[in-house]
Amino acid sequence: ENRLPAFATHQIGVAGAVVDESNGKVLVVQDRNKTKNAWKFPGGLSDPGENIGTTAVREVFEETGVRSEFRSLLSIRQQHNHPNAWGMSDMYIICRLSPLTYKINFCTQECLRCEWLDLADLAKTSHTTPITSRVARLLLHGLEKGFDTVDLAMEELPAVYSGMFYQLYHRQIPSTPKS
Amino acid sequence: ENRLPAFATHQIGVAGAVVDESNGKVLVVQDRNKTKNAWKFPGGLSDPGENIGTTAVREVFEETGVRSEFRSLLSIRQQHNHPNAWGMSDMYIICRLSPLTYKINFCTQECLRCEWLDLADLAKTSHTTPITSRVARLLLHGLEKGFDTVDLAMEELPAVYSGMFYQLYHRQIPSTPKS
Repeated sequence: ENRLPAFATHQIGVAGAVVDESNGKVLVVQDRNKTKNAWKFPGGLSDPGENIGTTAVREVFEETGVRSEFRSLLSIRQQHNHPNAWGMSDMYIICRLSPLTYKINFCTQECLRCEWLDLADLAKTSHTTPITSRVARLLLHGLEKGFDTVDLAMEELPAVYSGMFYQLYHRQIPSTPKS
Repeated sequence: ENRLPAFATHQIGVAGAVVDESNGKVLVVQDRNKTKNAWKFPGGLSDPGENIGTTAVREVFEETGVRSEFRSLLSIRQQHNHPNAWGMSDMYIICRLSPLTYKINFCTQECLRCEWLDLADLAKTSHTTPITSRVARLLLHGLEKGFDTVDLAMEELPAVYSGMFYQLYHRQIPSTPKS
């Protein structure tokens, strides 16, 4: 059996849910061209070689002007024959980010609107996508019960070959020693 | 700004941790060619258009002869410039599976050994990879406290366009209504 892959099959899209824990608001945008009037988390495609968290922080800044830092991975969606992926598959990952700045200066080419919206409102509104609504409810739960109830934590570990590092995401358990 | 991606950047590798809850054993293999004497979960690359869980079940069967069904997603690793990915990036996903059959009939071209190993032993041994060891500890925790403490559950939702379905993975929260 030939175990060698011929090519990459997936593009990686990443969105960032920037949550202001002091007031329960989250940063959302409405696209200029797609899914009008639907609030979404800012995001876009990973550049080659770019880590998931880096994409989230970069895309949030490019679209909204808000600086943030990576906290965790919240949700993963796999979709095949994605219309924007040239018939390939799409892995869409939503991360939780913490804001470092709060002033919005959004990209008017990409976005029609950009706001800090109450998470509770985002979880209720029909003006959003199913996945955004779902993640809003996850985040509300995290805000109330602690984000450890919804997070997939990230850890960097050295690769066996190459001396490079890879990013490993899984749930935290009390007995997990650092290795 | 040009928002269109030019190409897919990632291959998706999937491994299946088949856990026999009746005796705390998990199905592991030793590769014939790579990382000798290291116990690993059977797995391989996703075919184009193939869902994560389908890859896990297929690869486990091809390598070990054991039939299983998908339960959840446990861990995700992102690695760039992967040596087996032609300089592209690799997303390696470990799933939790439940066995439907137990008799091992492993592929001797791929595997040197294949066994049902005690999870507690796999979590302790040095004859494994760091990520396998980590996931063994996650699974031990799940066996003791319930797999809901370590799982990322999967749900299928209809895509807005196309009428197709996508797979969404995130942690279960008590208040998540089905939508």
